[in-house]
Amino acid sequence: MAEPSITARSLTPDAVRSAYALIQPYIHRTPLLTCQTLNTIASTPQSAESLVGTPFEGQTPANPKFRFFFKCENYQRIGAFKARGAFHALLRLLAERGEEEVKRRGVITHSSGNHAQALALAASTLHVPAYIVMPSISTPSKIAGTRSHGAEVIFSGSTSTEREAVVAEIQAKTDAILVPPYDHFNIICGQGTTALEMEEQYRALVSEKPHLSVHASGAEADAGSRHLDAVITPLGGGGLNAGVATFFSGKPTRVFGAEPSFEGADDCRRGLEAGQRVESVKTLTIADGLRTPVGVLNWEVISDRSKVAGVFAVTEDQIKAAMRLVLERMKVVVEPSAVVGLAVCLFNEEFRRLVEKEAGPDGWDMGIVFTGGNTPVEAIGKLFV
Amino acid sequence: MAEPSITARSLTPDAVRSAYALIQPYIHRTPLLTCQTLNTIASTPQSAESLVGTPFEGQTPANPKFRFFFKCENYQRIGAFKARGAFHALLRLLAERGEEEVKRRGVITHSSGNHAQALALAASTLHVPAYIVMPSISTPSKIAGTRSHGAEVIFSGSTSTEREAVVAEIQAKTDAILVPPYDHFNIICGQGTTALEMEEQYRALVSEKPHLSVHASGAEADAGSRHLDAVITPLGGGGLNAGVATFFSGKPTRVFGAEPSFEGADDCRRGLEAGQRVESVKTLTIADGLRTPVGVLNWEVISDRSKVAGVFAVTEDQIKAAMRLVLERMKVVVEPSAVVGLAVCLFNEEFRRLVEKEAGPDGWDMGIVFTGGNTPVEAIGKLFV
Repeated sequence: MAEPSITARSLTPDAVRSAYALIQPYIHRTPLLTCQTLNTIASTPQSAESLVGTPFEGQTPANPKFRFFFKCENYQRIGAFKARGAFHALLRLLAERGEEEVKRRGVITHSSGNHAQALALAASTLHVPAYIVMPSISTPSKIAGTRSHGAEVIFSGSTSTEREAVVAEIQAKTDAILVPPYDHFNIICGQGTTALEMEEQYRALVSEKPHLSVHASGAEADAGSRHLDAVITPLGGGGLNAGVATFFSGKPTRVFGAEPSFEGADDCRRGLEAGQRVESVKTLTIADGLRTPVGVLNWEVISDRSKVAGVFAVTEDQIKAAMRLVLERMKVVVEPSAVVGLAVCLFNEEFRRLVEKEAGPDGWDMGIVFTGGNTPVEAIGKLFV
Repeated sequence: MAEPSITARSLTPDAVRSAYALIQPYIHRTPLLTCQTLNTIASTPQSAESLVGTPFEGQTPANPKFRFFFKCENYQRIGAFKARGAFHALLRLLAERGEEEVKRRGVITHSSGNHAQALALAASTLHVPAYIVMPSISTPSKIAGTRSHGAEVIFSGSTSTEREAVVAEIQAKTDAILVPPYDHFNIICGQGTTALEMEEQYRALVSEKPHLSVHASGAEADAGSRHLDAVITPLGGGGLNAGVATFFSGKPTRVFGAEPSFEGADDCRRGLEAGQRVESVKTLTIADGLRTPVGVLNWEVISDRSKVAGVFAVTEDQIKAAMRLVLERMKVVVEPSAVVGLAVCLFNEEFRRLVEKEAGPDGWDMGIVFTGGNTPVEAIGKLFV
């Protein structure tokens, strides 16, 4: 990889801590949940049949051990982690450019939905006008949610190129300041606060209930120094994954990314394989929050092997199977994008072999970010009928 | 009402406390959640149009104020409150009849699903054989859940009469001891422990976050003496409602019951109106846990106005609308039966008038029991596509 840019070098755990101090009054501290049933399922080898037609056909299925810690950002304000980045970006804008300028010009963004609602909420909370460019195929509840916060919604096509053209058009008319959905220092630091809370909550939880972690009873006696062995997050534009990797950089917690493979949505995984960022993607994966290519700054972080240990992909059926388990067994409502990390742990044989090999018989205490829960009941129906 | 039976007179708050001491190691202390969005929706008058065709057409819609506290028994073991009653009944059987007899004869019950899974779990945990009679139209996940705990499943028709006939047949063969699903002292006391936890958790919650209750800042300064103004639970056979009413008897917390009105499923409400228990019901309401008539002992408790302040009914569409709000806004998976109490608060205009009148501008701190969450994703699909 090339020498990191100055901006990438400024992405440090302390930058995430500063973001947290700023946004804390505006966001929810979402719960960190565990689920014995999902631990058991993930810690059981896949059937030999499920590997037929994959490179692992005929081989013994891997037998990794997982203890999951689910960071439930579906319970975040607006139902997704995006509230963190949006509040952080807008609070920084107000601090840097002054209230008068920001309130006069307003802010603008484009988003498939959750960032739209998040910026609309942050803007209405902080009394700033907001223009939101949304693909016309966005789920109606996301459009309604965005409008309900008083933002002006403008429709576009669904590719990044189409969205960006409409943004430029509106900016020319209004002089509104762009708050990009993921490819920005302040957004990355805001999303990274998810990791900061995860680590604090993990330590508190295994300190109170040592049986939840295999490490708790070991030599590592001090609750304050325990760490998650690994964390996996969904990866679309990469703001969350880069933010989480930023927070954990220099710590023992490994960070992984998870993408859908449908119609090439695994652009980051393919880019890492080819040694070069994939610049555009056109996919209609059911994980609709992950249809965008990884951003430029995000790529700098994610392609740094000292920060992100690997990116893995799963099929649409695997995403649906993971979503069913979360709805039926955990009784928690998540959107398809939210469970892509869990799907990797359950079904990606390459990842499962890696965990078996690196973790050994003890297995890993594994953090999983559920990114959002904005699925209308009709959409659940369409996925599973 | 007639003089209460000796058994009904023994249903006291202390009987519920004894049950709790016994079952605590075997059950989850489920969370008590709040949701500002649902408070706001419930505290807003219904539209004039929604009252068209009801006795309230043309009148000003009621304007009650609610602060909800949701007791999430969908996060209970086996996904429903029924685990409480089943463990209690079986633990008492073992204590009273001795391990040898109970393990030799085994236990039997009939249930539309959740009690079946609950008894199967309790029986496998306590090493007792279990025979479960289930309607052949039960949801496949409930049948699979019951079998997964090692119980023998025998199918029957779906009315109580049909189920009871099959139970008698199996008992003749096996001498298994009947653990009835709701019409029994030990079951009622077990389900009543839901109320005991609710009260403790409510006090802890408003003590920590006084803004959640309007009462917290008032003269009533001592957290230990605060009380929920009212609690509403779904009402099918009536075990939960009678248990909750038993726990709160003699306390200031009012208890209400909620039923579906579809095809006469509101047998308890109709019985109270007529002054006599309705003995049989045949309904296929979507609230499949509430298809049974209220039990004899349960009726004694529920028809005692000093224990249950009233029973209200809602339509299938109102149940679906409440379920949508819980899934989409709270991101919590519930089954249709679970939200019937919430549906009464949101949509039953008679109940809303009562709350407005009795509570005044302060409104009520209102406990709502979400009874279960065993809905397969396909069933969610069928309800909402």
